[in-house]
Amino acid sequence: MYFEDYVPGRVFELAPIEVSHEDIVTFAREYDPQPFHLDPESPEARALGGLIASGWQTSLLTMRSFVTGYISDESNLPSPGIDELRWHAPMRPGETLSVRVTVLEARASQSKPDRGVVRSRLEAIDTEGRVRLSMEPINIMRRRPTTDPDAS
Amino acid sequence: MYFEDYVPGRVFELAPIEVSHEDIVTFAREYDPQPFHLDPESPEARALGGLIASGWQTSLLTMRSFVTGYISDESNLPSPGIDELRWHAPMRPGETLSVRVTVLEARASQSKPDRGVVRSRLEAIDTEGRVRLSMEPINIMRRRPTTDPDAS
Repeated sequence: MYFEDYVPGRVFELAPIEVSHEDIVTFAREYDPQPFHLDPESPEARALGGLIASGWQTSLLTMRSFVTGYISDESNLPSPGIDELRWHAPMRPGETLSVRVTVLEARASQSKPDRGVVRSRLEAIDTEGRVRLSMEPINIMRRRPTTDPDAS
Repeated sequence: MYFEDYVPGRVFELAPIEVSHEDIVTFAREYDPQPFHLDPESPEARALGGLIASGWQTSLLTMRSFVTGYISDESNLPSPGIDELRWHAPMRPGETLSVRVTVLEARASQSKPDRGVVRSRLEAIDTEGRVRLSMEPINIMRRRPTTDPDAS
């Protein structure tokens, strides 16, 4: 896919995500060592109804589906960032969330005619249709080459 | 630390972060498999002057310093999210970045008198003082208990 393929309003269903109890604890030990991500018997986890995944872990799993199913190596340049990363409700051990992305905006660059900026809304959704995580990635995408470079 | 300790304008220096070539590739294989994070000899990496760390990896390392050095188990509740995550320039193998956090805003909850909302600006900064990564985490913090619960 190139810049031209990211038409505002297009929706893509991406690979679903899941985590085990062990995945949650292993990730938390490395990156987000808070009691409610580490120990289901901690007072902090019990107050939340049990172990919850780090929001960063849910974000990364969702982002992996985005990288492998939505953006393309041949067109995607390094991203400037993410807006409004929101953890509406946590992911719990054994759950599967579906992943959906919607093109919000695609704007050709004024200064660099070979590329454009794509804004998307990326969501992880539970089996009852509730959005657990959302974020708005910003991507710089190359435009489709107008002539085949191999033919020149 | 409790809600009352997060006074707007306070600045904290947190643990610095670093990544090796191997760290970058291992992380990218699992979460962000793009050529400029995987292979320094790829055309995509060469166009950027070599291998660059996933912005998500830089974010997580920065967040680990935030979790271990800024928020406290006894007061920090699950976070609603992050605003304006920005990858101003990439982190490269062997680099060390310092990590700084500034309290932006601390607002007591109207509906829940035991807690408040803290907004912070978290930055990873290179040796020349340039901000490579910034984000604005939103945290829900408990207020300091007015009486010692153990004394009752």
